[in-house]
Parts: sequence; structure tokens; C-alpha cells
Amino acid sequence: MSFNYAKSARKILCIGRNYAAHIAELNNVKPQQPFYFLKPTSSILQQGAGAVLIPKGTVVHHEVELAVILNKTLKNLDPDAFSDKDAIDAIDGYALAIDFTARNVQDEAKKKGLPWSIGKGFDTFCPLSAFIPKSKIPDPYNVELFLKINGETKQDDLTSLMIFPINKILSTMSSVMTLEKGDIILTGTPKGVGKVVPGDHIVAGLKVDGVEIEEGKLDLP
Amino acid sequence: MSFNYAKSARKILCIGRNYAAHIAELNNVKPQQPFYFLKPTSSILQQGAGAVLIPKGTVVHHEVELAVILNKTLKNLDPDAFSDKDAIDAIDGYALAIDFTARNVQDEAKKKGLPWSIGKGFDTFCPLSAFIPKSKIPDPYNVELFLKINGETKQDDLTSLMIFPINKILSTMSSVMTLEKGDIILTGTPKGVGKVVPGDHIVAGLKVDGVEIEEGKLDLP
Ligand SMILES: [Mg+2]
Ligand SMILES: [Mg+2]
Ligand SMILES: [Mg+2]
Repeated sequence: MSFNYAKSARKILCIGRNYAAHIAELNNVKPQQPFYFLKPTSSILQQGAGAVLIPKGTVVHHEVELAVILNKTLKNLDPDAFSDKDAIDAIDGYALAIDFTARNVQDEAKKKGLPWSIGKGFDTFCPLSAFIPKSKIPDPYNVELFLKINGETKQDDLTSLMIFPINKILSTMSSVMTLEKGDIILTGTPKGVGKVVPGDHIVAGLKVDGVEIEEGKLDLP
Repeated sequence: MSFNYAKSARKILCIGRNYAAHIAELNNVKPQQPFYFLKPTSSILQQGAGAVLIPKGTVVHHEVELAVILNKTLKNLDPDAFSDKDAIDAIDGYALAIDFTARNVQDEAKKKGLPWSIGKGFDTFCPLSAFIPKSKIPDPYNVELFLKINGETKQDDLTSLMIFPINKILSTMSSVMTLEKGDIILTGTPKGVGKVVPGDHIVAGLKVDGVEIEEGKLDLP
């Protein structure tokens, strides 16, 4: 299984608040437009490379997400013209990702109007599965994302619940920053986010029509 | 003159609020610790590659900054032990940078507790000069940074006014995210930030002991 995509990514962009029930659980406001933030590529943790690190003084939450990897440059896309099919054409493949978040650091930043980069950017805060070939996911809105801690299911929802579809996400981002071949886009987390502590055994994955996709497995010791 | 460093950078990290007079001019609070944010590498504009773009509906401010380029990996540095000399040893060279900021977008994000990535991340928002060899800047705290618009000086201050020195900046960042060889660190802007409009001729540079360093010139048409 290939992890090369994780080494060559120029940037990681993540949508916030793309599932209504997750917005409600954090008492956030539903955005009119997709908003997003960067995670540093130094936060990538490849499947098999070890555990997520819980930095001292932080409360770390899991957010399981479907990641798309781009196969071309996208720049100043017309949001009215860039279709669902165009978006699929621009996708090289998929991955399962966890957008780990130091929630107390992020909450403090939100209160003070400071950037999210620290709360989102610690080393190991972006575990990525192996590359999932596009053929394995015929429809990115028909994917079941799940995450378990010590055997207990914490998140389990369908990507059909996304508020903003991928074409809308890509066109909005592309009007600000050029998206490049290899960029990794995290499409938001469904409800059920919560705390992880050192020693937790975290297993996450995705299913298509009830069948788990081997490449999408994440198993963090 | 070499711009290769700008092509191989894995990340751009920027300190906010590192000059007291600039904190005052934006009515911000002085931080207890350095805080920082990411700019995407897609925002890099190499000297000679054209003008900064002013996106529709944005109020764009210039922030001239001294950038340092790292020559090694820095991870979990001990802030008490990592000295000024250690920091200089970890610097490969310098560049002049402008941290362009869509101030209205950033202000709105600050009000709503949203990430800064959009306001800081537009294409062309990170002009970079050619690589400045370390030998040209014997002391990074004895550098005069200046920026002129249409011939009028807007910013002109010494890097000796930095609140957090480079060793403190690097050790703080490294405790969150691994700093990698080639990473570009912007060290903050002195007072005098303000609006640029399409057609403005922006010239920025740096001087050591009153003498301008050729490699550090930025001239945006
Ligand atoms: Mg979300
Ligand atoms: Mg997320
Ligand atoms: Mg700045």
C-alpha cells in the first residue's frame, strides 16, 4: 500500500463545520460559506508509524474525515460552473484522515480571535491511511466513516450528510489559494467527536455499501 | 540570485505581534508567548514574478518582515537551553518577505473565532526576495526593514525592536510542530502597516549598517 502521496503533499486544507450534527454538538454557528484552515504537513502520521501524541496540557479530540487527494492544479474556479463531475475528475484518490484537534487550545484561540494553527498543527495530529484508489469509492457521498476507541464506536456516519459538497469546497478554496496536484483536502467530520487519552486504542476506517475498504484502515496503538 | 529555497519550502510559519508599536497600532493585546500561523506555500510570489493581487472585496495590508530559512530539523527544543547562538546555527539564510493580509477578512475571522488561513493565504500574499546568504547579515537584530509605496516610506524600523528573539520563536514553534530544513519563518512586522491598492508600486528592502542588501530587494509593480 502506498503512502507516497503523504510525502509529496504541498498542503493540507481542512473544512470546518461540514456536518450539521457536529456543528450542534460543539455549539457552533452553521457557516454560509465553507471555511477552512491549514494543517502543516509536519502533522502527518502515516498508518503504522505509531500513536498520536497528546501534548502536555491539551485536551485532544478525534475528528474522522474523508480526505481527497487532487490530481491537478485548480485555480479561481467558477463556483457556478464547477460541477460534481468536475470535482470527481480532479480527484486522484482518497484517504481516511483524523483531524486531531487540541480542543482547549482551539477554544482559547477562538475566544481571543487568534489563529487555529497551533491547536490543529501538533506533530501526529493528521494520521492518514494508505492511498485509496478512486475506483474503490465510486461515490464519495456514499461512504460510511467510523472511529472506535478501545472497541467502542464514537463516530459512525455517512458522507451523504456533508453540508457543502466537494465541488463547492474546491471552488471556494480555489478562489483564495491555488490548489495543487497532491494537495490533501479534509472534508469535515460527522458528529461524535470527543477526547482521546494516552493509551487509547483508536481504530478508524471507511465502508462502501457496508464493506470496509482495506486501504482506508487506521489503527493507532 | 537564487529563489530555489522558495520552491522547496515545506511550510511558512509567521509570528504575530512581535513589535510593540505594531501591536498598538492595531489595538491588539501583547502576547505572553509568541503565537503564529501558517501561510500556504501557494501564496509565495517570487521577486520578479509580478504584482500582489488584491482580491475583490478585500482590504489588503502590507507587513514587511525578516524571514529566516532553516538549515536543519528542529523538534521539541528546550526553550531554556536553545540559545541565540543555537538559533543562528540553525539558520541557512535570510529573505525579505511581505506578509500581505486581507485585514477585513482577518478582522471578521477574529470576531467570529474563525481561522486566519483565508485572510493570510491568498495567492501572491507572500512575496519573497532572493536568498540572502547568512554572511550578509552578521546580526539579525541589526537589520533595518523598510517598505515604500509609490516612493513614500510606510515602514522603516530596526529588527532590534522584536519582542521575542529568534531562538525563542523557534523553540516555541518546535514544541508544537517539527521545523524542517527549508522551512521559512517570518519574524513579525514593525509599525506602519497599511492599505495597498491595485497599481501601487511597492518597494521593500533591508539594510545593514545603512547599506542596502541587494538580494533583499522586493519591487512589486
Ligand atoms: Mg467539522
Ligand atoms: Mg475537522
Ligand atoms: Mg505578519
